[in-house]
This record gives sequence, structure tokens and C-alpha cells, in this order.
Amino acid sequence: MAEINLRPLADRVLVEPSAAETKTASGIIIPDTAQEKPQQGKVVAVGNGKVDEPMTVKVGDTVLYGKYGGTEIKHNGVDYLIMREADIFAVIG
Amino acid sequence: MAEINLRPLADRVLVEPSAAETKTASGIIIPDTAQEKPQQGKVVAVGNGKVDEPMTVKVGDTVLYGKYGGTEIKHNGVDYLIMREADIFAVIG
Amino acid sequence: MAEINLRPLADRVLVEPSAAETKTASGIIIPDTAQEKPQQGKVVAVGNGKVDEPMTVKVGDTVLYGKYGGTEIKHNGVDYLIMREADIFAVIG
Amino acid sequence: MAEINLRPLADRVLVEPSAAETKTASGIIIPDTAQEKPQQGKVVAVGNGKVDEPMTVKVGDTVLYGKYGGTEIKHNGVDYLIMREADIFAVIG
Amino acid sequence: MAEINLRPLADRVLVEPSAAETKTASGIIIPDTAQEKPQQGKVVAVGNGKVDEPMTVKVGDTVLYGKYGGTEIKHNGVDYLIMREADIFAVIG
Amino acid sequence: MAEINLRPLADRVLVEPSAAETKTASGIIIPDTAQEKPQQGKVVAVGNGKVDEPMTVKVGDTVLYGKYGGTEIKHNGVDYLIMREADIFAVIG
Amino acid sequence: MAEINLRPLADRVLVEPSAAETKTASGIIIPDTAQEKPQQGKVVAVGNGKVDEPMTVKVGDTVLYGKYGGTEIKHNGVDYLIMREADIFAVIG
Repeated sequence: MAEINLRPLADRVLVEPSAAETKTASGIIIPDTAQEKPQQGKVVAVGNGKVDEPMTVKVGDTVLYGKYGGTEIKHNGVDYLIMREADIFAVIG
Repeated sequence: MAEINLRPLADRVLVEPSAAETKTASGIIIPDTAQEKPQQGKVVAVGNGKVDEPMTVKVGDTVLYGKYGGTEIKHNGVDYLIMREADIFAVIG
Repeated sequence: MAEINLRPLADRVLVEPSAAETKTASGIIIPDTAQEKPQQGKVVAVGNGKVDEPMTVKVGDTVLYGKYGGTEIKHNGVDYLIMREADIFAVIG
Repeated sequence: MAEINLRPLADRVLVEPSAAETKTASGIIIPDTAQEKPQQGKVVAVGNGKVDEPMTVKVGDTVLYGKYGGTEIKHNGVDYLIMREADIFAVIG
Repeated sequence: MAEINLRPLADRVLVEPSAAETKTASGIIIPDTAQEKPQQGKVVAVGNGKVDEPMTVKVGDTVLYGKYGGTEIKHNGVDYLIMREADIFAVIG
Repeated sequence: MAEINLRPLADRVLVEPSAAETKTASGIIIPDTAQEKPQQGKVVAVGNGKVDEPMTVKVGDTVLYGKYGGTEIKHNGVDYLIMREADIFAVIG
Repeated sequence: MAEINLRPLADRVLVEPSAAETKTASGIIIPDTAQEKPQQGKVVAVGNGKVDEPMTVKVGDTVLYGKYGGTEIKHNGVDYLIMREADIFAVIG
């Protein structure tokens, strides 16, 4: 994964969503009946955090996040999501 | 209960809901007429808390939480809920 | 009153509601025309409070609280309410 | 006025409303056209305040408060109102 | 202007509205087309302020305030308004 | 511009709107299609700010502000707007 | 890019939107199906920030921001947007 030339501001995180989301390599299956289906992706870039709130996730982390969090952007042909760290539920692995 | 490879962020808690919820081993019966029926489960993973707000629950605690708190995820064939600690009412035992 | 094996989290309080609520032993009569009729009960368990907000009520206190505060739970055959301390109006006696 | 066995919590105040509210001894007349008619009463018990917010009113103060503030309770045959200090407009005298 | 026996609480201010409000002695004319017509009056009593927020207006100040701020009360035959200092726009003179 | 006898409270600013608002001397043209058309005016009086929030604009500054910010008042035959500093977008020049 | 005579207040940023927004020089393509399409522009002027919140973006930065953030203004024949720094998602490059 090459360095990306996008620097998220404040508590924002740039995430590259995983291709297959119904059954992933780490074994998470997203149930159909979930109210808010969590999504999985890889952290590509991380902001510097807010005053007194340092960031927790790091570039390379695989994260779970809510379905409706973040804004889609396409950069050099790749789809990304940019979201606030508070929209991330957990780090996998 | 094996170690799980999911690390909740901030004040989030990963809970494995108890199988039988109308009558549990510890004797709690969920009344039918309750406005918001509390649910019971076991804490599987705990975040590091927020700035100046350390976490109270520990892995292994049995907890009561609201019916509509948390997001369902399935991991290695097991159903979990991920919620904020503020959605947990009490620890049993 | 035996020790109960439920530990409320943060600023939550476990209350056992009084049986007779229209006329109690201490002489409080709940008027019919009140917009929000206060209820009376005994504190059974108390959380550790929040950061910089210690708890005021103690186990054994008789308290007045709002009609719509708290969540009902049944434990070992007894009905309880779990509520935040801010939902409690006053301590009697 | 005998000591009352009700201790309001935090920033709450127990008030005994004045009997005659259209024309009082201190000469306040509540106008008919007021959007929110202030009420008058005597402070009977006062909470300990919140963190960093000590209480201002004292037992025995005559106070003006909004019509819709507070919750009615009846204790030993007397009608009281329990309200937050922020619902009190002014002290008379 | 005699001393008044009403002590506003916290950040509240007691104001005696000016009699003529379309054309005053200091020359302010309230336009008909204003969305929220400011009113003018004299400060009669001032609270002690809130923690870390001392009061700015003084007894005797002529103030401009919003039309819908404050609660009307009548005391010894005089109409007053009681409002929060934040409802006052400016001091005249 | 003579001294004005109005002292805005806290973070409020008294502004004299510019006469011509579609094309001004400094060359700003307000587009017709803007969702919220900014307005331009001259600062006439400034409050002392709030605790820990000193004021930025000064008397004499030309400012841009939102169309729906502020309250209209007329003083000695001149139309003014009184608004909070947070309603001001930028200083021109 | 000449110096501009507009000084944004507090945490506001003046941005000159990029001309072509469906395909830019740096290769970002805005997808049609995005809920909120991010826009791209160049920072022209930056406020001094708020108390304890210094600014992150600098004049000359190329930024991504939400479609509905900011207010349009036209100055010396150029269209600008004025927005809060919190409305900016990321800096490019």
C-alpha cells in the first residue's frame, strides 16, 4: 500500500473499504438482520486528533465502522471513505 | 472463553449476549411489561476509555444493558454486541 | 434486606419501590392531579458515581423519584428499578 | 414552621406555595395577562448544590418561581413543590 | 427610584420597562418592520451572577432587550420584567 | 462617525449596514444565487467579550455577516444591527 | 495568487473552489453516487482560530470539503466560499 497524498484534518480517518463485506478473511460475517451493519476497512491516513484527544487508530489498522458513517471519495481510481474516529467501533486483530 | 481479536475503541464494550434471556442462571426474569427490557450478557473486550473517563467493566463481567443499545456483529460464528459503557446499567455478581 | 448481587454503573441507583404508593408509612400522599407523580422506594445498591460527581444517596435511604424514571428489572423474584441519581428528587427522613 | 424530614438532592429546593396567589401580604399582584405567571412560596428545604455550584436560597426565604416549574408532592397533609434552584426567579424581601 | 425588595437569583435582572416605547427621551425609535423589536427599560435589581460569570449591568442602567425575553411581574403596583442578563442587548448612554 | 451612546453587552457588536449592498466600493458583489447572502457594514460599537473570549473586531472595521443575523434598531435616525461576533464572517481590508 | 483583503474571523477559512470538479489535476474523481460529494478548492485566507484551538490549514493548501458547507461570496470578480475549518475534511498533497 503506497503512501497517499491526503492528510485528514483533526479527528478524521481515511479508510479503504474491504472488497468483500459479507464474508472476510478474518471470519467476520455481517448478519442480514442487523439494524446498523458494521463495515470493515483498512486505515490509510489519520489526522492529528483534536486538542486533548489524541488518535487511537494507526495507518494499516483494520477497522469496523457503521454503515452510514463517512463520506465517499475516489482518489487515483481507488474508493475511500473519510470519517471521524468516533465513527469507528473497533480495531480487528 | 478464548481471547478475541477485536479491540473496541474509546468507551466501547464488546458483549456476548446470554442465550436464554427470559430466565437466566442467576435468576433474573425479564418482565413482559417493562418499557425497555434490560438484556444480559458477558463482556468479551473493553476499550481504553476516554480522556479522564476510565472504564469500569472488565472482561468476564456479566452485565445488564438496554434492549436497543449496541450494534450486532458476527465474528467466527458467534453473535456479539458492541456498545458504549454508558449503555450498560449494572454488573451482576 | 439481604445484600444484592447487582452493582449499578456510574451514577446509577437500584431502587426497590414501596408496595403501597397512594398512602405510605411516612405519611406521603401522592396527589391525583400531579403532572408527574413522584414515587417512593428504598435504595438497594448505588454506583460509584462519575468523575468529579460523587454519589449522595446511600443504601437504605428512602427516596422520592419521578414516575417515568428508571428501567424495571426483576431479580430473584423481586421487582426493582434502576435509575440515574439525577432522577431522584429527595431523600425522606 | 417545623423541621421537615425531606432532604432535596443536589440543586433541588422544596417550596411550600403561598395560599393566596393573586394578592399577597408583600404586595405582589400577579397580572392576568402574563405569559408565564410567577408563583410565590416559602423555602422549606434546600439541597447541597452541585459540584462548583453552591446554593443561594435558604430555608425560610420567600421566592418567586415559574408556574410550570417543579413537581407537586403532599407530605403530612401539606402540599409542597420540589424544583431546581434554576427555576426560582428571585427572593422577596 | 426607591430600593426594591426583590433580589434576582444568579444571572437574572429586574427591569422596569419604559412607558413610551415608540419614541424615547434618548432618541431611539423602534422600527415597525423589525423582526424582533428591542424594548427599553431601567435596571432595578441585579443578581450576583453565576460561577465565573460576573454581571455587567448595574442598577440604574437603561437597557435594550428582546421583545420576548423575561417574565412579567407586578410589585407594589409597578410592572416589572425579570430576565437573564444574556437577554439584554446593550446599555444606553 | 460620531461616538455612539450604545454599549453592546458581552460578545455583541453594533453594526451600521452599508447603503448599497449589491455593489460596494471595495468591489464585493453579492451573488443572487447564494443560499445565505452575506451583508456588509461598519462596526460602530463592540462589547467587552465573554470570559476567556476576547473580541476580535474593532470599531471602524468593515465586516461581512449573514443575512439573518442580528436585530434591527433605529437610534437618532440611523438604522443599526446588533449581533453576536460569531455571526460575523470576515473583516474586509 | 495575489494577497486578498478579507480576514476571516475565528475558525473560518476562505476557499477558492477549483474550476473543474468532476476530474481534477491531482486525480480525484467525485463519484456520482456519493451521499455528500466532497468539493475541492484552494485556501486563500485563514482566521486566527478559537481559544485553545489553533488552525491547521494554511494559505495555499488544497482542501476537500462538504458540498453544503460554507457561504458563497464574490470579491473583485472571483467566487469564494467562507467556511469553518471543521467543515474541511482533508488537505491534499
